[in-house]
Amino acid sequence: MARQITDPRLTKKAYEARVPEVREELVRLQVRLKEAPFKILLIVAGEEGCGRGEVINTLNGWLDPRGVETFAFREPTDEERERPLMWRYWRCLPTEGRLGIFAGSWYTEALREQASGSQIPTQLNHELARIRHFEKLLADNGTLIVKVWLHLSKTDQRRRLKELAADPDTAWRVTEEARHHHRIYDRLARTAEKIRTATHQAGAPWTLIDAADPRARNLAVAKLLLRRFEAHAKHAAKTPASTRSKPPRSLKPEGLQRLLSLPLDQKLSAVDYEDKREKWLGRLNRAVRAAHDAQRSIVFVFEGWDAAGKGGAIRRLTSAIDARDYRVIPIAKPTDEEKAHHYLWRFWRHVPRAGLVTLYDRSWYGRVLVERLEGFCTEKEWKRAYAEMNDFEEQLTEHGIIVVKFWMHVSRDEQLKRFRERENTAYKQHKINAEDWRNRRKWHAYEIAVGDMLAMTDTACAPWHLIPANNKRHARLQILKTASKMIEDALGK
Amino acid sequence: MARQITDPRLTKKAYEARVPEVREELVRLQVRLKEAPFKILLIVAGEEGCGRGEVINTLNGWLDPRGVETFAFREPTDEERERPLMWRYWRCLPTEGRLGIFAGSWYTEALREQASGSQIPTQLNHELARIRHFEKLLADNGTLIVKVWLHLSKTDQRRRLKELAADPDTAWRVTEEARHHHRIYDRLARTAEKIRTATHQAGAPWTLIDAADPRARNLAVAKLLLRRFEAHAKHAAKTPASTRSKPPRSLKPEGLQRLLSLPLDQKLSAVDYEDKREKWLGRLNRAVRAAHDAQRSIVFVFEGWDAAGKGGAIRRLTSAIDARDYRVIPIAKPTDEEKAHHYLWRFWRHVPRAGLVTLYDRSWYGRVLVERLEGFCTEKEWKRAYAEMNDFEEQLTEHGIIVVKFWMHVSRDEQLKRFRERENTAYKQHKINAEDWRNRRKWHAYEIAVGDMLAMTDTACAPWHLIPANNKRHARLQILKTASKMIEDALGK
Repeated sequence: MARQITDPRLTKKAYEARVPEVREELVRLQVRLKEAPFKILLIVAGEEGCGRGEVINTLNGWLDPRGVETFAFREPTDEERERPLMWRYWRCLPTEGRLGIFAGSWYTEALREQASGSQIPTQLNHELARIRHFEKLLADNGTLIVKVWLHLSKTDQRRRLKELAADPDTAWRVTEEARHHHRIYDRLARTAEKIRTATHQAGAPWTLIDAADPRARNLAVAKLLLRRFEAHAKHAAKTPASTRSKPPRSLKPEGLQRLLSLPLDQKLSAVDYEDKREKWLGRLNRAVRAAHDAQRSIVFVFEGWDAAGKGGAIRRLTSAIDARDYRVIPIAKPTDEEKAHHYLWRFWRHVPRAGLVTLYDRSWYGRVLVERLEGFCTEKEWKRAYAEMNDFEEQLTEHGIIVVKFWMHVSRDEQLKRFRERENTAYKQHKINAEDWRNRRKWHAYEIAVGDMLAMTDTACAPWHLIPANNKRHARLQILKTASKMIEDALGK
Repeated sequence: MARQITDPRLTKKAYEARVPEVREELVRLQVRLKEAPFKILLIVAGEEGCGRGEVINTLNGWLDPRGVETFAFREPTDEERERPLMWRYWRCLPTEGRLGIFAGSWYTEALREQASGSQIPTQLNHELARIRHFEKLLADNGTLIVKVWLHLSKTDQRRRLKELAADPDTAWRVTEEARHHHRIYDRLARTAEKIRTATHQAGAPWTLIDAADPRARNLAVAKLLLRRFEAHAKHAAKTPASTRSKPPRSLKPEGLQRLLSLPLDQKLSAVDYEDKREKWLGRLNRAVRAAHDAQRSIVFVFEGWDAAGKGGAIRRLTSAIDARDYRVIPIAKPTDEEKAHHYLWRFWRHVPRAGLVTLYDRSWYGRVLVERLEGFCTEKEWKRAYAEMNDFEEQLTEHGIIVVKFWMHVSRDEQLKRFRERENTAYKQHKINAEDWRNRRKWHAYEIAVGDMLAMTDTACAPWHLIPANNKRHARLQILKTASKMIEDALGK
């Protein structure tokens, strides 16, 4: 862990002589950042009395406030409590070109719980793994993460608390909790070090800054930010994703085998279908209502070939759910706000509240399908995405959200038949365009990408359900059945 | 109020014969809507037992769920309670090209409070005025608003409740509250009629639909939606705003006079300034903290000529506030999500939570300044905007938010001096571009627009503060003073 050397003592005069230059450099940083293809997260933490708030206020005074957002996290709101832990952090991430300063952060809870002794070690380790993953994901995406620990020795802390208590303007800050933290200084310091060590990684390193002298401390944080920015900006030219994609090679051939061995010759008569449909719609309706009553949310993911029948299947499925309780999120091109974020951000924002249902019509898997094959992202990016998506789904399920993923599979001939039908039916023509035909020509490449997706993201908490869909009735019924059973299973029924 | 004639009784057979056609028409509507420059809001309300939920579920089954969102409003969340009443509705408005179905809506509260008898008539009238204004604002912006009242006579209601109670699958819906509503049917019907009459207006009319026969009722709602869409789509070609703007004429010359008569020759020595600044920064800090403790939010609006010193003034002002408690929102070009909404949406979304501060660096007033002069909106639109903005600010202040608006004023010569200085100073060059020079050439046109803005939006709850800004020190100090006093006043100190 880097330990930044600060000037041991800085006179007011020496400080004031240095500040103008630092300010100018910070504003220049912001001008460059505005056009940069990344954002900065500055996380400021430290011992009680280290002056975290002062540092942040000083920095904000030096920076152009129009490009900065400062975040503090108090008690989670009810909208936040109803989602996975990291949702509240995802929702406030700044967009590219901006600087987010985190007064509180994803570390605040871990530190607080450790201080109060209310958390068992395995929970802590799990939370730290979560944090590591979150920061890695952001860093991999180009985000500059600067984590500062303002260090105060026990002696310095005692002196600092005394100073604060002596001044009527600041005495209110020396709370009973602060005094308690001073008494258990050694234990807290050990925990903090453990947390720092566990989350010190490439792309998100901690830097210790001595906070004994407030002026030296302020300058040290600013300089660290400037130095890290310089180093980061050098490599941050966005790697242009190749416009010409290589013919894909399978990463894990068993996924492709699974896809190709799916039988597609099922039959189902209309009478048989209607009879069974009513039964399963009723069962699904009861399952969804039971989930709602238990405040369990449900996330459905619909992926499949063009014209495989996703829209029709979604329509049948939603007919069993009260319209007030679900939302269908069609995934098309991202908006420009979405583009200025990590690719998962646009999916995090639609994670449902407790007891509600979100259906994604296409999903995050676009990253390893169309984006992989069209070269919209780099090879490194889509290869990384499998683990990122698995982790995302794990966070959902860990929070109690039921995740049901479908791949709707048709044969290439069946797709052709449906494309032609769409072209020849007036009210279906809007459903087909040149891009569909282009994608169709890449069928075999897509098969490989789908196969890899199935093999890499078929997890215990969120398995893939392959739906043979040459026969629409059979497909719809199987989706109703699978959805019902998965929900019942999750509810332990 | 239109009363839709429904078929008195529709056999199952007749119904099923008609449904396919209606469904096809609805899907066609959605295809056209997708490309249309407006959105649809369908509000469904009605007497207890009218089958509101059934109608909405049926419609959702007929429509393509990918273009629809259905909203129900339960208890407001804490994030909602901390903002003005209408915030929760603004945040869930669909974007252009989409259909929002409102199972609950801004009427739900009013109806519920009337039913429980907990609201006094003046409150109701005030709320209805608010609703009228909200719907007018959306309708003026091109939104198609369809409001349906599903009507059930007292006799029909009794029959319906009996039917529901007799079926074990629906008996749970006949709550004690439902029975109570039946007992006070007449009183509720009178109130509902009063509410409908008060909110029946051009662009947002109510339609009564007889709900005695469920099948006829479902078809009637669908047909109403189709008919209203047809009529609306005819006129909905977006009026192209004129690219060439006429030389503006003052609407209210007293605003221009106020602007032109502002003395700009103030002086303030550096020593004098620093002395006073410290005093006022301290006072502002105490005022903001007092507001925070009282859970009162503050909204600052900064408008002014290019190079008038908005950035510097904001920086000084924020130096008195804890960085965790404020956010600066720089207003530049809207994002594409913002463009797909009413122009006020992008400002509503940043309304602060209780006790926090938002500073808008430029604001909604762009509508009557740059958008008026550059022809980005029609004459009708910017003329309407004055009242819309006054109402927006009234909603903020009514909720207890303190609104402080500044116009920073410099002479044309002073602006020229600053532009040249920016061009000649390396680290200021990013602050000036060709557009600034273009705007400068339109100085007199802008004077007229600013004058009208001052005259039309200088309200008691949110008055304009004109800040002479040729002298930067004087301007900054006056802003600190004004901000402190306005907050103190609002807190009754």
